[in-house]
Amino acid sequence: MRELGIGLIGTGFMGRAHALAFNNARAVFELPVHLKLAALADADTERAQRCATAWGFAQAHGDWQALIDDPAVDVVAITTPNHLHFPMAMAAIAAGKAVYCEKPLAVSLEQADAMRQAARKAGVVTRVGYNYQHNPMIGLARQLIAEGDLGDIISFQGEFSEDFMADPASPWSWRCEVGHAGGALADLGSHLLAMARYLVGDVTGVCADTQTVHAQRPAVNGSAEQKAIAVDDQVHALLRFANGARGTVSSSWLKHGYKNHLSFEISGTKGTLAFDQERLNELRLCRAGQDGFQRLLAGPALPGYAAFSPAAGHQLGYNELKTLEVQELIMAVTGQGADGTDFEAAWEVERLATAIRVAAQEERWVNVNSL
Amino acid sequence: MRELGIGLIGTGFMGRAHALAFNNARAVFELPVHLKLAALADADTERAQRCATAWGFAQAHGDWQALIDDPAVDVVAITTPNHLHFPMAMAAIAAGKAVYCEKPLAVSLEQADAMRQAARKAGVVTRVGYNYQHNPMIGLARQLIAEGDLGDIISFQGEFSEDFMADPASPWSWRCEVGHAGGALADLGSHLLAMARYLVGDVTGVCADTQTVHAQRPAVNGSAEQKAIAVDDQVHALLRFANGARGTVSSSWLKHGYKNHLSFEISGTKGTLAFDQERLNELRLCRAGQDGFQRLLAGPALPGYAAFSPAAGHQLGYNELKTLEVQELIMAVTGQGADGTDFEAAWEVERLATAIRVAAQEERWVNVNSL
Amino acid sequence: MRELGIGLIGTGFMGRAHALAFNNARAVFELPVHLKLAALADADTERAQRCATAWGFAQAHGDWQALIDDPAVDVVAITTPNHLHFPMAMAAIAAGKAVYCEKPLAVSLEQADAMRQAARKAGVVTRVGYNYQHNPMIGLARQLIAEGDLGDIISFQGEFSEDFMADPASPWSWRCEVGHAGGALADLGSHLLAMARYLVGDVTGVCADTQTVHAQRPAVNGSAEQKAIAVDDQVHALLRFANGARGTVSSSWLKHGYKNHLSFEISGTKGTLAFDQERLNELRLCRAGQDGFQRLLAGPALPGYAAFSPAAGHQLGYNELKTLEVQELIMAVTGQGADGTDFEAAWEVERLATAIRVAAQEERWVNVNSL
Amino acid sequence: MRELGIGLIGTGFMGRAHALAFNNARAVFELPVHLKLAALADADTERAQRCATAWGFAQAHGDWQALIDDPAVDVVAITTPNHLHFPMAMAAIAAGKAVYCEKPLAVSLEQADAMRQAARKAGVVTRVGYNYQHNPMIGLARQLIAEGDLGDIISFQGEFSEDFMADPASPWSWRCEVGHAGGALADLGSHLLAMARYLVGDVTGVCADTQTVHAQRPAVNGSAEQKAIAVDDQVHALLRFANGARGTVSSSWLKHGYKNHLSFEISGTKGTLAFDQERLNELRLCRAGQDGFQRLLAGPALPGYAAFSPAAGHQLGYNELKTLEVQELIMAVTGQGADGTDFEAAWEVERLATAIRVAAQEERWVNVNSL
Repeated sequence: MRELGIGLIGTGFMGRAHALAFNNARAVFELPVHLKLAALADADTERAQRCATAWGFAQAHGDWQALIDDPAVDVVAITTPNHLHFPMAMAAIAAGKAVYCEKPLAVSLEQADAMRQAARKAGVVTRVGYNYQHNPMIGLARQLIAEGDLGDIISFQGEFSEDFMADPASPWSWRCEVGHAGGALADLGSHLLAMARYLVGDVTGVCADTQTVHAQRPAVNGSAEQKAIAVDDQVHALLRFANGARGTVSSSWLKHGYKNHLSFEISGTKGTLAFDQERLNELRLCRAGQDGFQRLLAGPALPGYAAFSPAAGHQLGYNELKTLEVQELIMAVTGQGADGTDFEAAWEVERLATAIRVAAQEERWVNVNSL
Repeated sequence: MRELGIGLIGTGFMGRAHALAFNNARAVFELPVHLKLAALADADTERAQRCATAWGFAQAHGDWQALIDDPAVDVVAITTPNHLHFPMAMAAIAAGKAVYCEKPLAVSLEQADAMRQAARKAGVVTRVGYNYQHNPMIGLARQLIAEGDLGDIISFQGEFSEDFMADPASPWSWRCEVGHAGGALADLGSHLLAMARYLVGDVTGVCADTQTVHAQRPAVNGSAEQKAIAVDDQVHALLRFANGARGTVSSSWLKHGYKNHLSFEISGTKGTLAFDQERLNELRLCRAGQDGFQRLLAGPALPGYAAFSPAAGHQLGYNELKTLEVQELIMAVTGQGADGTDFEAAWEVERLATAIRVAAQEERWVNVNSL
Repeated sequence: MRELGIGLIGTGFMGRAHALAFNNARAVFELPVHLKLAALADADTERAQRCATAWGFAQAHGDWQALIDDPAVDVVAITTPNHLHFPMAMAAIAAGKAVYCEKPLAVSLEQADAMRQAARKAGVVTRVGYNYQHNPMIGLARQLIAEGDLGDIISFQGEFSEDFMADPASPWSWRCEVGHAGGALADLGSHLLAMARYLVGDVTGVCADTQTVHAQRPAVNGSAEQKAIAVDDQVHALLRFANGARGTVSSSWLKHGYKNHLSFEISGTKGTLAFDQERLNELRLCRAGQDGFQRLLAGPALPGYAAFSPAAGHQLGYNELKTLEVQELIMAVTGQGADGTDFEAAWEVERLATAIRVAAQEERWVNVNSL
Repeated sequence: MRELGIGLIGTGFMGRAHALAFNNARAVFELPVHLKLAALADADTERAQRCATAWGFAQAHGDWQALIDDPAVDVVAITTPNHLHFPMAMAAIAAGKAVYCEKPLAVSLEQADAMRQAARKAGVVTRVGYNYQHNPMIGLARQLIAEGDLGDIISFQGEFSEDFMADPASPWSWRCEVGHAGGALADLGSHLLAMARYLVGDVTGVCADTQTVHAQRPAVNGSAEQKAIAVDDQVHALLRFANGARGTVSSSWLKHGYKNHLSFEISGTKGTLAFDQERLNELRLCRAGQDGFQRLLAGPALPGYAAFSPAAGHQLGYNELKTLEVQELIMAVTGQGADGTDFEAAWEVERLATAIRVAAQEERWVNVNSL
């Protein structure tokens, strides 16, 4: 069996999540290649070495370019801060390697555009970490829609809210920087927009409102020094989909009570479907003619679930969505049809987020395709 | 104790709901006047007589003007089809009587404007049947907001969806006529807009999308003859409140699974509050610093609830909201401060709905006060 | 139309609930008789008079025997403290009148037995106020079971818990007296036992545990004086039904968080059904072959609901269950087949509660029919 | 750092779950030893070899005794059918090795007793796979109870129901054999009993009912040949805890709608706590003085959660509970205080299940300590 070498850049939470996912994908799935954890890179060489040992990588690099150049590396996984996605992905593409980049694809639409163009030209496989889409329950939702179980889709109402910035004393961080793709829309909302597109399709028009509620925050935790904040704390938008469906999306990182509330309801002429990421193993469904919503609980009838458990109700966790994402990545890299988010699709998400930003600034409907 | 004569026009479902409410208000509340069910009117004199007997009205009229002219009538309650609200209310105002009119106030903004102006000029007390606001849990929500428990309100996300038109074979009815204040926005959405205003205050700007999904429907149930439908099946809108809060509202009568889903989440800098009319005795609340939402269940600490039951968890029903509305009406008529929806406030709701309609037609933000 | 005279004893919360129910039953239902609110009795004559006026009773009595003797009274409704049920009901039976008695039927099994024997001998119609059974959703549950939708019933797991005595500083009241049918089992549990019998049928064997957690309580609110408490704070029991089903019942008035948690799950070979009185307009149902529970929301397909509202999701409240109970009473009194709880059935409930008490005291299984 | 060699017997679903857990524990936790996946055994040598490669074990054995004798193995993990737990664990103990055995400990109380005695005598560390206890939310529940947040515990009401045998056409399997620890009580109920003991402590008395609803099942799927079934399909029991708390437990594998419904409510004098394994990242809590239940969602304030995710609401899955169990095992093996289920505790669970079986057979209360 052919070997596929994985090179991972970054050793933070997301780096570890990738490492776990690559390890587990090997054990859980019958992959068409042998995954080799070839190299791990971190600017801190010592840390790179320590994590490489703990996570099972053969090699450690203190320099990400060295990892990209490493001939043992076939796939470059990027888990660094957002502003580094662009140079790293471009270098990996230039080296002809497959790229698996965390979301958001880039910190500007121009970067994102350059990345997708480069990838297209180089013909390399790309994937972006919109891992929530790999939830088997989301797969089921997509299948129900595709097979017409909901009829014509007429409405998508989505929200992604959390509370981690709800306290005005929560300090400034890179997430508060425009240049790092900060703000509720970019940080949280992009997941929701990707989901809306994944399930309902292209969005053609948007109108929106964004708001910065807390105009300054402590420079660091507990500090009296305040930093001005330019990014949005919350966003509300109207969407028009290419297929005629309409909808709303909202995102906030100020909403008390929510921790991971990526939720949506999709209404069709033959049924309604509802999901909340805080209960990721559930889907609520009401078909035409039924009296009320039925709760569906993830089970082994869904292949992505069966890989982890033979029994319904045992529940998958966040990290397993990442393992499923890695499996899809491997299938794509080995040329087997798949439905992940590549750089083209991720650019579409960025373009949509940009359209929302423009619509809010200019207080008008924006044609997404005009950007 | 002074007597207050009630005259009720209409003997349909809503007429009976009013009759029950007047009867029960007498038994449940210590009112400052003696409520006398003076007269009931219906175009069908026999029916008027039969219902008057069953519901305890002293007199029956086959002509609504006669009821208005009846000296025993101090308060005119109007429960007829929407297009009759205007002439009846105008006649009652002209007769110097208090008016209790079902929602919507009128079938055009011009009518609504004329009605509020007439009422103001005549100095008569007016009330409009936005009965959901009289739910003690809504009262609690309003109080929590007013007392600053949620901090500054930053977002209102509301929806009022039902499924009673979801079947494309559901036939045409007056609810499908623009001239009868039909459509999801007018029929359902106005309740939601009234609620948004009641809880968060004036709305200054809107942008919106409305849609007719099923462009024709059977003329009558089962008929092959189709009638063209011009009213909206669903609406999605963005709101900007005078106090700086932003939000979304959606309304649909095509949404499978929902029967009375007037729901909202109100987010403030110090907490979040959530409500769903399908569980009208509950409120979910998360204050800053709490880990998650707490379910509050209606109980006798709320005066409106205590009137009906000394024990928490016994639950009020829809009809009791109507009884509470009647009590508020009586308090207003007898000059005791209250917070119901008068013609001014109802006109504001109509104006807001109109602004949404204009925003949808013209595909732009609309300044509500410009209408 | 024949007139039926109602005599009501008691003017407390439950007395008013009866008065409302009689009033509303007239307006809501097409009854085969004309209900006349003939007389109201309270030991406090002045109060009797005041309430009679407010609630629409023609006559007031300071003496309950006078009410029973009043020839205008055909049905005697008893809402007094539990220990008075026996003498009042026996007097009413002796006078050949129909009796509508609040639960529990009596304060001892001997009394209850004497009451059902007397009623049987006199041939009078009797009803006991197990109003929760009149919930249309409970009617639906009963129908689903009767029609075999759940297959053979194999398990009933029920609980009725509240928190109103959870605070050890909650003072002594008559509910803490054995001689007044106090304690969690008699006060709350009897509702649950009645429900179990109503839905699943006769119980033949029981084993149980009862407990007094707080052995003394303040004599009155805030008092330092303590009174010893002999009644149970909580009970847990095993049930064996005549049809082979098994089950558990629990009741507590110490359970923080619950206000009216009369809940149960009924499991059959073809489905499971779940109910919680804190959401009395809902039923959860999972049929064999379905993936998960479906939420059913009360609507006008159920006649008991349609009487109050033509639209699903509008919700009934506690007081409307009482109105439904009154309707069933009137149907029974006028000789039309019905399924309410008569003195025979109420005695069965008392016998079952007694069997649980004996089983707990003697720490053994008890054959219910042996008592 | 010292190396600790893991030997795993069994390559089924549970074998793989162990393999994943050992792999992930290395990556997720800072363990005091270096975990070495030393050897994997399966009677099918080829399969053993294939799985060893896929899962990262250094060595494969076709004979479990060889694995136990392998000097590279320090800890023997047993995931074979239940009747093999006894010989394998006894052999591992005899070899002086730590044992990590799946539940149930054994197929008879005698075996379980011999195993705990042998382990005690040999002084080896033992653990049994009651993995649900390692859920951080269960840890939180235990801590809340231990720290007195709920006051004195007065009631435990638990249920573990699933639907996987609900269809009478579901065929016979080893789970239907008494000699393989089959039946709802042994298969599901033991998890619940372990949980009750883990959270509330020793159980001293039980009374119970067990039932076989479907007395025969197809010998294999679709077969006309029927096999008689002797094990219980459902069980209901009363419990008395050493600390004075009382309770009920129920278990069924016939309950339509449930997939993994290990649920309980624990009532104390200062609060109530509720859990449902079908939503394993949640806990509902109502403290004295609060109006209603609050939903707690797992987050990084709990160390077991923080190991997997820095953000609340991301949710753990079943397999991660296994990883947490392995971590606890490693801590125990390396002499660091822990609270897992050792053979003593697992024998207590078996004894309690046996007491329930005796109580049901003899229709009487059974003193657990008398067995």
